[in-house]
Amino acid sequence: MTFPKIGVVGGGQLARMMAPAAEALGVGFHVLSEAEGSPAAQVSSQVTVGDYHDYEALLAFARTVDVLTFDHEHVPTEHLEALQAAGVSVQPQPQALVHAQDKLVMRAKMDELGLPNPAWAPVSSTAELAAFGERAGFPLILKTPRGGYDGHGVRVIDSAAEAADWFAEAPGPLLAEEKVDFARELAVMVGRSPSGQTAVWPVVETYQRDGICKEAIAPAPGLPAELAERIAGDVLTVAGALGVTGVMAMELFETPQGYVVNELAMRPHNTGHWTQDGSVTSQFEQHLRAVLDLPLGDPTAKAPFTAMGNVLGAEHEDLYRAYLHVLAHDPQAKVHMYGKSVRPGRKLGHVNVSGADPVEVRARARHAADYIAGTDPDPHPRHGRSDGPARAAGASAAESSARAESTAQTGAGA
Amino acid sequence: MTFPKIGVVGGGQLARMMAPAAEALGVGFHVLSEAEGSPAAQVSSQVTVGDYHDYEALLAFARTVDVLTFDHEHVPTEHLEALQAAGVSVQPQPQALVHAQDKLVMRAKMDELGLPNPAWAPVSSTAELAAFGERAGFPLILKTPRGGYDGHGVRVIDSAAEAADWFAEAPGPLLAEEKVDFARELAVMVGRSPSGQTAVWPVVETYQRDGICKEAIAPAPGLPAELAERIAGDVLTVAGALGVTGVMAMELFETPQGYVVNELAMRPHNTGHWTQDGSVTSQFEQHLRAVLDLPLGDPTAKAPFTAMGNVLGAEHEDLYRAYLHVLAHDPQAKVHMYGKSVRPGRKLGHVNVSGADPVEVRARARHAADYIAGTDPDPHPRHGRSDGPARAAGASAAESSARAESTAQTGAGA
Repeated sequence: MTFPKIGVVGGGQLARMMAPAAEALGVGFHVLSEAEGSPAAQVSSQVTVGDYHDYEALLAFARTVDVLTFDHEHVPTEHLEALQAAGVSVQPQPQALVHAQDKLVMRAKMDELGLPNPAWAPVSSTAELAAFGERAGFPLILKTPRGGYDGHGVRVIDSAAEAADWFAEAPGPLLAEEKVDFARELAVMVGRSPSGQTAVWPVVETYQRDGICKEAIAPAPGLPAELAERIAGDVLTVAGALGVTGVMAMELFETPQGYVVNELAMRPHNTGHWTQDGSVTSQFEQHLRAVLDLPLGDPTAKAPFTAMGNVLGAEHEDLYRAYLHVLAHDPQAKVHMYGKSVRPGRKLGHVNVSGADPVEVRARARHAADYIAGTDPDPHPRHGRSDGPARAAGASAAESSARAESTAQTGAGA
Repeated sequence: MTFPKIGVVGGGQLARMMAPAAEALGVGFHVLSEAEGSPAAQVSSQVTVGDYHDYEALLAFARTVDVLTFDHEHVPTEHLEALQAAGVSVQPQPQALVHAQDKLVMRAKMDELGLPNPAWAPVSSTAELAAFGERAGFPLILKTPRGGYDGHGVRVIDSAAEAADWFAEAPGPLLAEEKVDFARELAVMVGRSPSGQTAVWPVVETYQRDGICKEAIAPAPGLPAELAERIAGDVLTVAGALGVTGVMAMELFETPQGYVVNELAMRPHNTGHWTQDGSVTSQFEQHLRAVLDLPLGDPTAKAPFTAMGNVLGAEHEDLYRAYLHVLAHDPQAKVHMYGKSVRPGRKLGHVNVSGADPVEVRARARHAADYIAGTDPDPHPRHGRSDGPARAAGASAAESSARAESTAQTGAGA
């Protein structure tokens, strides 16, 4: 028995961040990248450039690896089924993945499993949308069942007539949903292997802007223990019922009654990036362990709180100088860059910060991310820290120079 | 300003483990590998196969990167000086690196800096060795000044006559050292940038077998605080005086008087592997930050103790089945495999385990490493744990299945 090879379809940052996990686990790591020089292609020794819409390209790539998995959910279901029929180990399997690809399929499944959905309906015309709106009220949310991500394919609709353009273009029914009056957004991630082993990370609070995840903190501060238990139990129900393999994220709205399900993703997810530095097992390592049917790792958090801030592209095209400043300003910040060029709104990297105070770690992660992006001009914010980072056990005064520099810079901005 | 590219000479496991740090930092990572398929070549998108003894190969490689650094200390000093003269940024600089390449140069420098050396002398003949032996006593240690590693180039000598073969072959003087009567072996690592910023990790206790590092634990259990402070101060003295850039390991013998210096290494070091999972900043990330003159990261430990056990090749050539067992048996174990074929005594990987009890984490790391290597046949040892791993904050009973499996297996072996 030799160490297996994994093949990832898609060369984005999620595939990129799987590479270190493959390195440590000692498994082979191949990427089917849509282009040369993609984030994952930059860090992988085995890269094939090819189009994931092309079945023959997928099959040829799959023949070079032991297990096929994904950086995104856009591979056509019929290709995945054909690969499976050809004997390829597709993980997650298309029968599971369709619940993350098609929001109508997902909503129906949640109902079947008794999980809390918002009011929803498939709608094929403005008349059907108007009828749904009479029941659920306006404004409501209209979604394309497939192809949406990061706010794409989602609209807030004040009247049925507004959606006429989408109905004119849509190949099938759209998904109409009640606009949920939520207290905050949460997410929970689970890893599950083909053998059925599972592991759930703590529930995360997330912060969106323009439909894009901007920040997350784990565990969700102040989440009632009973709700956390219920959510963890429910995500295990979903993972088992759908036959999930790999990691799955379930995005939620917290409501006065508990929560409702928002969306599913069947791959490492932005709301799980904190696990790279804040959990015994990162979501990227767990995804590889799970799709390879290796025993799963411990999802326990390593710090009281870990916050994640996304670096979202803005006007500044040169991030390097601000990046240097952030490394100097907060020597505990874990900066993860994706090797991308800057475009407005594009996810370019993220920053994780761990610590005991949820307000402080969020502020530090957000500042670091926004300063790199160029959207927070303050080089020396105060985050309400009463003291600098704790010193290492057995450390000398002299060895604190990395931290001393940080403290000095913080002080300079006071 | 764009993100820089680093070039590493040598394709071994140290270069391999720099790759994840380069991925996160967003810096380019190129490897000059002595062969195709080396541990680092397996995980890098930019690999040149070439001989580090060949100056032209080194220069051509250096022209493709911004900074040149090393996986090992075997590049001839004259090549490094020539590269420097040609305008290449060589980090660490050859003037510093020579202290890790030549043990006679190192001993003289330690004396000059007032650091605690054992009795030592350069010896060019059995007569000179006999004279040193009269002063220092037999048995004593004889070392080749250059080219030694992992016990190679080191002999215990009971009489001067025994060393006649080495003198016949040696191109210059050998290094004779007093055989130190030590309580235990320690090591300390520091990162230092060209700007002079420094960061010291906690002092580590190490365990050698046949001259090869077998285990390490950080911080060294029971080390008196004054001695830890003195060692941290001394390694900063050395790093500054030598102009070290990158990370440096100082291996020590703890003695009744404090300690004496054993050896220096100017690169990531086996005794620092614990930092990958046990420190805010790993030695690999710090090495890249330091040689690129980026601000350094925080070296604080993230757990009370982190132990590292090396997977040393033995008879078993198929590690995969035992590796699967270890992943299942201890879901908190962080396994790092190097992608190497098995040879007796070869370093094939290592395992890090963090926790509150130094005896327990050492036992778990050692068992995991030895079980993978095939040298510990017990699949279900008891490590004196009174309880299983702590549960995650906010976790449900159901989500403990990864750990439950481990507990069940431990129980089965009781």
